[in-house]
Amino acid sequence: MSLPSPIPMRLAPLSLTRVVADIEAGRATPETVIREANERIDSLDGVIGAFVRRASADSIAAASAATGPLRGVPFGVKDIFDTFDMATEHGSPIYEGHQPLADAPLVAIARSLGAAILGKTATTEFASMDPAATRNPHDLAHTPGGSSSGSAAGIAAGMLAAACGSQTGGSVIRPASFCGIAGYKPSFRLLPTVGMKVFSWTLDTAGLFAAGVADVALLAECLSGRELTAPPLADASGLTIGLYRTAMDTGPQGRLDPAMAAAWETAAKALETAGAKLIDIPEPAALEAARDAHGTVQNFEAAQALLHERTMHRSRMGPQVLALLDEGAAVTPEAYDAGRRTARIGRKAAAALFDTCDALLAPSAFGPAPKGLATTGDPALNKLWTLTGNPCVNVPGLATAEGLPLGLTIVSRFGRDRTALSVARLLEDKIQAA
Amino acid sequence: MSLPSPIPMRLAPLSLTRVVADIEAGRATPETVIREANERIDSLDGVIGAFVRRASADSIAAASAATGPLRGVPFGVKDIFDTFDMATEHGSPIYEGHQPLADAPLVAIARSLGAAILGKTATTEFASMDPAATRNPHDLAHTPGGSSSGSAAGIAAGMLAAACGSQTGGSVIRPASFCGIAGYKPSFRLLPTVGMKVFSWTLDTAGLFAAGVADVALLAECLSGRELTAPPLADASGLTIGLYRTAMDTGPQGRLDPAMAAAWETAAKALETAGAKLIDIPEPAALEAARDAHGTVQNFEAAQALLHERTMHRSRMGPQVLALLDEGAAVTPEAYDAGRRTARIGRKAAAALFDTCDALLAPSAFGPAPKGLATTGDPALNKLWTLTGNPCVNVPGLATAEGLPLGLTIVSRFGRDRTALSVARLLEDKIQAA
Repeated sequence: MSLPSPIPMRLAPLSLTRVVADIEAGRATPETVIREANERIDSLDGVIGAFVRRASADSIAAASAATGPLRGVPFGVKDIFDTFDMATEHGSPIYEGHQPLADAPLVAIARSLGAAILGKTATTEFASMDPAATRNPHDLAHTPGGSSSGSAAGIAAGMLAAACGSQTGGSVIRPASFCGIAGYKPSFRLLPTVGMKVFSWTLDTAGLFAAGVADVALLAECLSGRELTAPPLADASGLTIGLYRTAMDTGPQGRLDPAMAAAWETAAKALETAGAKLIDIPEPAALEAARDAHGTVQNFEAAQALLHERTMHRSRMGPQVLALLDEGAAVTPEAYDAGRRTARIGRKAAAALFDTCDALLAPSAFGPAPKGLATTGDPALNKLWTLTGNPCVNVPGLATAEGLPLGLTIVSRFGRDRTALSVARLLEDKIQAA
Repeated sequence: MSLPSPIPMRLAPLSLTRVVADIEAGRATPETVIREANERIDSLDGVIGAFVRRASADSIAAASAATGPLRGVPFGVKDIFDTFDMATEHGSPIYEGHQPLADAPLVAIARSLGAAILGKTATTEFASMDPAATRNPHDLAHTPGGSSSGSAAGIAAGMLAAACGSQTGGSVIRPASFCGIAGYKPSFRLLPTVGMKVFSWTLDTAGLFAAGVADVALLAECLSGRELTAPPLADASGLTIGLYRTAMDTGPQGRLDPAMAAAWETAAKALETAGAKLIDIPEPAALEAARDAHGTVQNFEAAQALLHERTMHRSRMGPQVLALLDEGAAVTPEAYDAGRRTARIGRKAAAALFDTCDALLAPSAFGPAPKGLATTGDPALNKLWTLTGNPCVNVPGLATAEGLPLGLTIVSRFGRDRTALSVARLLEDKIQAA
């Protein structure tokens, strides 16, 4: 594929907090916000490719007249979530034109709060590794990451103020890092995954994207009905932050890009300067083992979840997902059950980490978005936390010398999503202030 | 509705073990077994109403030519599981004619093993409490139970040798008890629930039906890929069986029918005579609290899972499920989260029960199938084990003086499904021998 040279785009992310405040105060109307977002999609998406389908004029008209706290909010839905008014194709030709009868609950909740569903966003095939045609708004020659490629790129390019995605390995945190936006993978099952195409029921987690951390926290609060926003922390005094170090970062197996290592250090220093105590947390063996079990659990379940497609529509599946499913079909139930036991032990080890710190700070990826669209990047640094179910937030704001975003992840105790969002917001503030 | 007087039917359940052995030995062919089952459905189902949809001639022809360990096995699929070759209506007019693209994985696995999917079986609306039109083969004036009404009745009437269902409260164990067949609710998530209409993701459990316990164990072994059959236990020596007693059984709040109380005692004595040590286990407070939390968790999740249907198709929903969903919509996230915590504590309390015994013995229902088709009966004695995720097997073989079946439940430790099935089989043998 011939890639255009990097075109510097004028990136103007649409802050959800600002949209909501402007509409609330009468400085904007749902209709104008929606129209401007649609105009931005019209002008940019031919190049970006964040959308695979746009809402009908009828749906737009209904959304413009909606009421509720998210009225007028341009919202993108990853195309593995069912929508009653748009086809849902899961990034697969097998599902071409497939029209569900009902909205997935997460979509129905967003609509019930007034959100304007402007379209379906591009996903890798079945939210696995065969890429979508989406480009990174920060540099069109680079991947936006995946599998929630279109949701992340749509936010980064300012075409959307809110979007949903999903993470089975690293499909929320990684594209958020590559696209320089906030991404939030909640505690396992905080947001409903019903009506979302299943890949691995032990791992599939619905997640959210927005421009900044305060934006994604507001979105999560509205959609979950939990108190997840709070007055921003003035400083980090009293907080202990664990720098979570794995054998993959540095040392003989080290894969961390120097720019990401520097970003990690910058973020850690920002928190320390704000009063946090930093401690080193070398990865416990139980969590290294849990990460190794991720593939066994995921692939066995995916081979079952997509058994019909794999047997009846094999020739219409991408090479990467097909190889993964064939691998999964070769996993024995004994190996899978052993993997689930390893995961349970890992969840307990993850809980124990938070006896010594309030949150973990870690890189969201080994480096910036890789060049080219043939790969969506490596989920190695994300998938452990998908398996353990701990909440993760990608904090944007840092970049390489070339301007490619570098994200950091804040991880907190299972069920303490508000902690992860609060610490992430503080970090984002301190990075912006620096 | 005018009900026919009880017509004594000649019930001839089709033993899965015998079908598989006959085909294996060449005493029968898949084609003849399938033809005879279809003839039996033709002659009986006008009265029973177990099926809502039959397989096409093409699908029957394909099934007759299938290979694999379950080849020729007449298999019924509850109509909340997706099937690529038959509509899937979830017992709801909203889904009239709804045609999924893919088989649910459990169906795809059954087909891949050669099973002959002969039709979709009747379900209460969305597998909740608004009844299907199915009758109890043991007495047509009585309910077969629900929500897996058609799967249970189809097995009891000998129209099927195997069937799948699901349990969110008591939708496998209760109809199995009322219809005098074996029902198996596995450990939570042993069998995939993908492609099954979601009611409550914390509770929905795929389950199985067959004529006897050895039959359902063979079916479970084939579909799960786990070793779940074993040479039958000669006796119960070395086994400790806990008689699980709740405040609902006897005493001031007691609701147990005297016939069921007698059946429970008969079963306990049969195990004691076979060498088991019996102990009384009064229900711990943590498990009583967990049962009380079942409705909070279920209803909150159901209100989310069916949000689109409830808001967009309200007038086409049954009164019982609508009342439940409205109740669920009024549950606060705080109350739901508290319910989930109570459930987690309950799971630990359930695990502790098996430190003092190998399995529990309890009634599967308060009594035999209630008269009339307006209710499918009460899941109160089943729903705790759905919430805790422990494996349960309904053991058939006892009945009231009028010939209505009375089932007993064997419960074992989470993940020890083979124990539950082995003890259940022993109990079934001893009841039959008595």
